[in-house]
Amino acid sequence: MRRSEKCLSALERRGVSLDDLIECARFLHGPYEDIKDSTIASVLVDILDKREVANALLCAIELDELCERDLFSDKALQEKIMYDDGLFGVDEVLAYGICNIYGSIALTNFGYIDKVKPGIIGKLNERKEGVCNTFLDDIVGALAASAASRMAHEKGS
Amino acid sequence: MRRSEKCLSALERRGVSLDDLIECARFLHGPYEDIKDSTIASVLVDILDKREVANALLCAIELDELCERDLFSDKALQEKIMYDDGLFGVDEVLAYGICNIYGSIALTNFGYIDKVKPGIIGKLNERKEGVCNTFLDDIVGALAASAASRMAHEKGS
Amino acid sequence: MRRSEKCLSALERRGVSLDDLIECARFLHGPYEDIKDSTIASVLVDILDKREVANALLCAIELDELCERDLFSDKALQEKIMYDDGLFGVDEVLAYGICNIYGSIALTNFGYIDKVKPGIIGKLNERKEGVCNTFLDDIVGALAASAASRMAHEKGS
Amino acid sequence: MRRSEKCLSALERRGVSLDDLIECARFLHGPYEDIKDSTIASVLVDILDKREVANALLCAIELDELCERDLFSDKALQEKIMYDDGLFGVDEVLAYGICNIYGSIALTNFGYIDKVKPGIIGKLNERKEGVCNTFLDDIVGALAASAASRMAHEKGS
Repeated sequence: MRRSEKCLSALERRGVSLDDLIECARFLHGPYEDIKDSTIASVLVDILDKREVANALLCAIELDELCERDLFSDKALQEKIMYDDGLFGVDEVLAYGICNIYGSIALTNFGYIDKVKPGIIGKLNERKEGVCNTFLDDIVGALAASAASRMAHEKGS
Repeated sequence: MRRSEKCLSALERRGVSLDDLIECARFLHGPYEDIKDSTIASVLVDILDKREVANALLCAIELDELCERDLFSDKALQEKIMYDDGLFGVDEVLAYGICNIYGSIALTNFGYIDKVKPGIIGKLNERKEGVCNTFLDDIVGALAASAASRMAHEKGS
Repeated sequence: MRRSEKCLSALERRGVSLDDLIECARFLHGPYEDIKDSTIASVLVDILDKREVANALLCAIELDELCERDLFSDKALQEKIMYDDGLFGVDEVLAYGICNIYGSIALTNFGYIDKVKPGIIGKLNERKEGVCNTFLDDIVGALAASAASRMAHEKGS
Repeated sequence: MRRSEKCLSALERRGVSLDDLIECARFLHGPYEDIKDSTIASVLVDILDKREVANALLCAIELDELCERDLFSDKALQEKIMYDDGLFGVDEVLAYGICNIYGSIALTNFGYIDKVKPGIIGKLNERKEGVCNTFLDDIVGALAASAASRMAHEKGS
């Protein structure tokens, strides 16, 4: 199985579709270029095929699920993640691990989308009893930011 | 002379006052806390006293001025900086050198302020014949983002 | 309980003492300055009191322990971590989250100590059935690198 | 002219040949794989064709040359760069701007090669009256580190 397939199926399990990712990437890159969904999709798949991206994403989702399943030994830490403490910081660190690979535009885009929280990012961010998307929402932002950066660089070259 | 004094005087020479920095930091942190100008000012001065921050800032301003003075050997590179090519990337790299020191909230804040461009950042970004603020506007964003991150962490502790 | 106490007790549980950390920091900074153990210790405690440092460390240790307890849903991912796949990358990403806060000397120091693996880092790196220190050895390297960076900056100022 | 050609000719002007870069990349990746010079060369050319890499490299070389030509307004800053003050930090920040794109192995490799200084990096580091390679030696390290990272990921896939 290709890395991107494994990632997309893990995302699907967590309620995030490829269309959701496309919508977020379009939110960032749309103002600069009229671009087809299929083009954005293929950029996203390329990104999800990268080893370091896939590993960060799978780790992030695993962490969210381990929290939901109440399996952390350190319950104070689990609580912090479960309630998405804004000063926690490790969720963004994993996201930057992805963005860095796509250059400075990816990092800037991430900061922006992380504040504005369009589409699925806003939905993931709503608190629901027993559900933890603390790591995932930042990963989705990082994927959209990286895709927008790649498209900006391709348009510019 | 303290590092912060040297930085503030270089900023002043380039049209950026301490009040401008305070306004940008307040733009980011204001929604979370009612905080006095003097408190923000002292956080900013602390940041400007850091060796790596001061060096990045002074290098950035020097680069802008060397461009304006038409002193680059590589004229194509000078042109790219002069006209703030959005894909250039080195200006953001210097800014991240500052933000990284203040943690992941600083990086997120930077991405946001860099898109919204409030106050002096918007003004620095207006193209004027013979004036180059390509590096400076990102540094100002990085300082505001770092100050907001420090205030968020202090509030939280 | 202070953050540093919680971190030191988690480290102790995983076989890393404050003396081990001091030895690694001395390995990096020793060639530049004759410095007392108690001074290095107090720099390390300061670092462990930082919120983002403590969170990254506790998350890293939790991940190692969750792997050992065989609790990951994604067994392929768990395997990769368990056997410290050199291309995994997420362990270093967490470590950089710490180093970044201590500037560029911390990052350089980390790269060096991560290759040379002195003292406890080498020991953590030895493969033992049922034991996982994939995230921890990078965190120890990051702490030593950050301490050495802080000492270099203090000496220089 | 392709970006890589422009970079290689700027490097040549500063005394760094493609063979020097190959030697540094081999120093890092050689222990893991028997690989031909021509393969390393083509990885390096690919890296030098990336927009953000080329911009960082050209900026770095320009800064070194502007120092040598005594053109900085801020003479204290120029002095610091001219004598490669170990706490300066901005040179490494530019280098990280390159390494980040090639993932965490690139960052680790950079830290290592920056301490050991094999081949041309050691030579660039020798102080010579009127010569400044403060930014360049870190860029060379970053290029070698990035090439070694790419080769490691390709071998692993």
